[in-house]
Amino acid sequence: MRIKIVNPNTSQLMTESIDSAARRYKRHDTEITTVLLKSGPSVIDGYYDEVLASAGILEEIKIGLHENFDGFIIACFSDPALKACREISTAPIVGIGEASMLLACTIAYKFAIVSMPKSATASMRALLSAYGLESRCASIRMIDVSVSQLETGLAKTKKLFLQEARKAIGEGAEAILLGCAGLSGLDKEFEKELGIPIIDGVVAAVKLLESLHDYGIKTRKILTYRTR
Amino acid sequence: MRIKIVNPNTSQLMTESIDSAARRYKRHDTEITTVLLKSGPSVIDGYYDEVLASAGILEEIKIGLHENFDGFIIACFSDPALKACREISTAPIVGIGEASMLLACTIAYKFAIVSMPKSATASMRALLSAYGLESRCASIRMIDVSVSQLETGLAKTKKLFLQEARKAIGEGAEAILLGCAGLSGLDKEFEKELGIPIIDGVVAAVKLLESLHDYGIKTRKILTYRTR
Amino acid sequence: MRIKIVNPNTSQLMTESIDSAARRYKRHDTEITTVLLKSGPSVIDGYYDEVLASAGILEEIKIGLHENFDGFIIACFSDPALKACREISTAPIVGIGEASMLLACTIAYKFAIVSMPKSATASMRALLSAYGLESRCASIRMIDVSVSQLETGLAKTKKLFLQEARKAIGEGAEAILLGCAGLSGLDKEFEKELGIPIIDGVVAAVKLLESLHDYGIKTRKILTYRTR
Amino acid sequence: MRIKIVNPNTSQLMTESIDSAARRYKRHDTEITTVLLKSGPSVIDGYYDEVLASAGILEEIKIGLHENFDGFIIACFSDPALKACREISTAPIVGIGEASMLLACTIAYKFAIVSMPKSATASMRALLSAYGLESRCASIRMIDVSVSQLETGLAKTKKLFLQEARKAIGEGAEAILLGCAGLSGLDKEFEKELGIPIIDGVVAAVKLLESLHDYGIKTRKILTYRTR
Amino acid sequence: MRIKIVNPNTSQLMTESIDSAARRYKRHDTEITTVLLKSGPSVIDGYYDEVLASAGILEEIKIGLHENFDGFIIACFSDPALKACREISTAPIVGIGEASMLLACTIAYKFAIVSMPKSATASMRALLSAYGLESRCASIRMIDVSVSQLETGLAKTKKLFLQEARKAIGEGAEAILLGCAGLSGLDKEFEKELGIPIIDGVVAAVKLLESLHDYGIKTRKILTYRTR
Amino acid sequence: MRIKIVNPNTSQLMTESIDSAARRYKRHDTEITTVLLKSGPSVIDGYYDEVLASAGILEEIKIGLHENFDGFIIACFSDPALKACREISTAPIVGIGEASMLLACTIAYKFAIVSMPKSATASMRALLSAYGLESRCASIRMIDVSVSQLETGLAKTKKLFLQEARKAIGEGAEAILLGCAGLSGLDKEFEKELGIPIIDGVVAAVKLLESLHDYGIKTRKILTYRTR
Repeated sequence: MRIKIVNPNTSQLMTESIDSAARRYKRHDTEITTVLLKSGPSVIDGYYDEVLASAGILEEIKIGLHENFDGFIIACFSDPALKACREISTAPIVGIGEASMLLACTIAYKFAIVSMPKSATASMRALLSAYGLESRCASIRMIDVSVSQLETGLAKTKKLFLQEARKAIGEGAEAILLGCAGLSGLDKEFEKELGIPIIDGVVAAVKLLESLHDYGIKTRKILTYRTR
Repeated sequence: MRIKIVNPNTSQLMTESIDSAARRYKRHDTEITTVLLKSGPSVIDGYYDEVLASAGILEEIKIGLHENFDGFIIACFSDPALKACREISTAPIVGIGEASMLLACTIAYKFAIVSMPKSATASMRALLSAYGLESRCASIRMIDVSVSQLETGLAKTKKLFLQEARKAIGEGAEAILLGCAGLSGLDKEFEKELGIPIIDGVVAAVKLLESLHDYGIKTRKILTYRTR
Repeated sequence: MRIKIVNPNTSQLMTESIDSAARRYKRHDTEITTVLLKSGPSVIDGYYDEVLASAGILEEIKIGLHENFDGFIIACFSDPALKACREISTAPIVGIGEASMLLACTIAYKFAIVSMPKSATASMRALLSAYGLESRCASIRMIDVSVSQLETGLAKTKKLFLQEARKAIGEGAEAILLGCAGLSGLDKEFEKELGIPIIDGVVAAVKLLESLHDYGIKTRKILTYRTR
Repeated sequence: MRIKIVNPNTSQLMTESIDSAARRYKRHDTEITTVLLKSGPSVIDGYYDEVLASAGILEEIKIGLHENFDGFIIACFSDPALKACREISTAPIVGIGEASMLLACTIAYKFAIVSMPKSATASMRALLSAYGLESRCASIRMIDVSVSQLETGLAKTKKLFLQEARKAIGEGAEAILLGCAGLSGLDKEFEKELGIPIIDGVVAAVKLLESLHDYGIKTRKILTYRTR
Repeated sequence: MRIKIVNPNTSQLMTESIDSAARRYKRHDTEITTVLLKSGPSVIDGYYDEVLASAGILEEIKIGLHENFDGFIIACFSDPALKACREISTAPIVGIGEASMLLACTIAYKFAIVSMPKSATASMRALLSAYGLESRCASIRMIDVSVSQLETGLAKTKKLFLQEARKAIGEGAEAILLGCAGLSGLDKEFEKELGIPIIDGVVAAVKLLESLHDYGIKTRKILTYRTR
Repeated sequence: MRIKIVNPNTSQLMTESIDSAARRYKRHDTEITTVLLKSGPSVIDGYYDEVLASAGILEEIKIGLHENFDGFIIACFSDPALKACREISTAPIVGIGEASMLLACTIAYKFAIVSMPKSATASMRALLSAYGLESRCASIRMIDVSVSQLETGLAKTKKLFLQEARKAIGEGAEAILLGCAGLSGLDKEFEKELGIPIIDGVVAAVKLLESLHDYGIKTRKILTYRTR
């Protein structure tokens, strides 16, 4: 199958990490194309950035539909514009937040989200609530750095991530979700340190799209996602 | 106080209804300025339209902040871009969905939302859930017309609204919210027919902004709405 | 409009603070009359006191209805007898607990209640649940003094309030509600110390009543509040 | 043990039904004393009546404490003043609403409440929510007669009760609670008609008090019910 | 009445404690027969043990039905096989988890469960959720010992129990449930130490069965528990 | 990868349907082995049958672990013994109920479960609640036939399934889950009739196991599923 991944910001470095994580676990007959936005926020660090990114995401999905991709991934943990994208497509579209949560449910009774920045706590909580999975989440732990600082201060980010993840394990987490696409690719490194599964939403999204494709299931266009 | 109302679409007719409803119940020392988007969807009829409108809403808030407005109203019942707008402003901003629900709570144990189109049921439900007010809502009743048909078929819309509103009363509603800015101004006409309070979110938003202004309370910029 | 505020205890000092807070933020054409109970508990410090106060509250509402007041406020944060009062009146009646929660929702994603005494935790939790606003409350923090000690030990109460409020901010509160009418008038003083909005329910109630009056909305007498 | 039952209204007929139901199922070594209020509402038909009755209930509990009763029952399904009574007593006190719900949980996955009048729907819902038992209730079904009409039109009430109970069974109810003390004593008659357990809260309350007495458990006076 | 208690493991010592606790508070005309499983886990220390025990529990209920017992108790706090047992019996059957929670609700606003081992946290949480009583539970506190270590290290278990119980009281607990049948009989000893009611589910179950027997209520065989 | 599917009953016909559905959508490098229980209920038609089947399921998982299977599926929609199985295995194990719900979430805002028999409504509701997905389920619709009648009366079952599925769509369902392994293989036939995705849990489980295997994620053995 052919999957198009939209990194909804303009960071070349983040786009490469995402692309690389997707390729590492894709099946051999899956083709991955990862794009970044032509214009928009450098990273998504709040609701304002999400709005700025959303029109660009829709644009990339539209282009992808013309190019006959079989499925799409929105590679930002807060799943921006996901419902709007589903309105214009029958090809399945998954967000990395949703994908990582759903996959985690199959191997852990309770998962935790470790993300950033601190102000996004409400946004993470709202995401869980929208998906109905609040009772499956042991803890939301936020690192107090902005997403834009993530790349420049990676060593510090890693250290803080492990700190918060350990607190989450103390609060009952049995799997940890990488709560930001900027952390993509760090799953196995963190897994070695923490001893519990770390889920990269980019990988989870690729695997779910492959599953939907094999099964031949598409986004249903009645009611919520109907084309108007 | 000076209030700027943003009608997040390009319908001149809807902008006039909104402006007129706001002026009817404003205090004499309140100034109302109602604008429509320079470009964007003609009406908001789904998630896709919401995304298209959101950037325009932010633009109008930014302009309004430079013009020193004391408060802002987003005049679409699904409160698009509300959280993003609060990130860039200390002046209070209210959505008409939120405003009508909060005001209804003071006079009715349970309210109902009567809105359109049918596909927006999930969106209405999500709004209630985000505000924590699910237990205060007796019923969500959707008219099966699109928002774009509202103006051209107003007589039919009114008839269908009353039909659904009566079902909602049978389900325990003690007040009805006009679930779409396109219905603005019909509150007292419906009230006469139905015998229970009908709440126009545009009016509710104006009154709440006046309340916040008198009390000197502004959007708090720590945590959720902090400027990044 | 003419508003009657019922302080549901026999404390003259508390009645004066309430009256003064209400006057500070009322509109110039609003008239405030604040009364205390002729007999009843000196302060409301538990469920027992609430029962003792409730008959007196109803009595004052009845008198007020004969005197043609346009709206009523029950000035105790646990909103005692509020539903019973709405049964006998079409004029709007708001409690200060409800009013402060609803107004807080427009400027903060999560609010906290700081109140007393410690035994009232369950009562606060029940109030939130009754209004459906549990998900909007970051924290309930109780000062371990009785309401009767509040006035005599005001300096100590203030210090403890600030302590608990700071804990609440650490738990995600973006606005603090004064959880007791005995704290009325301390909002702006606390606001200076804490840097986030402090909401006095007496003020919130006055503003909401003015809003309802302007809009011409009254308590609906079908179903829940119907006259029997 | 010695149990005092307080019928919180002034109806002699209802007091006799309650007393009789309690005696029918009490253990031989249990003594029942049933009193009605000296003054107050003739029946409890809304929040206003509840307030009027509450002071009288507290008075009867206080008298009962002096007379060394071992336990108390408040014989109105909405459990008025229950928490206030627990504040002034270490002897266990149960309401008939709470008692019938708790006992029903042991024999049915889902129960229903059949009660009156229609306006009390919100009150029943709030009771369930306060006790945390919403998920155990299949249905709340209200008969559209006032409590005061119950005695005079008993035949009609019975017929309407059976109608609503049958609807509740269709909605998944596996036991029916008599949602009003005025229905006390009709359990076995309805059980014969409906073929599922009908629970009379007066009986349930007697049995729970006997259980608590045997076990030597009393109302705990820390925190929520602490004496101030 | 004749009650059969099934201890769903093969521990003779635990069977004796359970039997003894039941006899201490039973009414003089109640006969208690306590049995252990012929084969199965030595104690129930997880989901795997629960499955192993469940067939044995059903077997003992079947034998008991032939011997015409009037009621049954499953003496393990996680209430294993309870719903399956109710499918094959009209005689009432109660689990000690359910029984202790329901009885606790009548004397405390919030209870806590103190249990073991730590891995059973999810199981306790699921139990509360199944019974709908999450909002009545202040805290679940787990001792980090396995159930099999309980008997051999009783002194240590007691010490750890008191430690966790005190934390639970700090979190708002007004009654403590013994969260394991292995703790049966320690209620009054702990009560002296902690000063709040400690509820032994075995006793609670005996008293509830006596109540149901007196009232003549049986498990209803329609819908959920219908015989197939 | 090598997947072992356990059909937890003794029906040869049902085992063949399950095996066939799994093979239809498996990847070419996935090996499927489907077994039925050596002894146990002919079908699972209630809680009693579930208990009878559970020991056999554990036995088959144990055998499978010795034969080094990479993953396991429990092919009964109520996911019997799932948590117990996870306690004894690090290889991932999924139930078909859980798998179909999780996959449905990626393509539909709300799904419905259509299952049988009517008495299993409570069981379905409990499953949703355990997985935290109540808000994602538009409707649970039960066919009033027993599972044992399913095979002999397939034509009738199909007709009733379509009837209930259509009601579910009217209640907002955007995808339908086959709520019983006995319906396995009917997905595409029903999809043609109903026009919305029908999800066969057997297929969903195969795809999720393949995803977990590719990603190298196993059941985490700390806390909830730790080996004791």
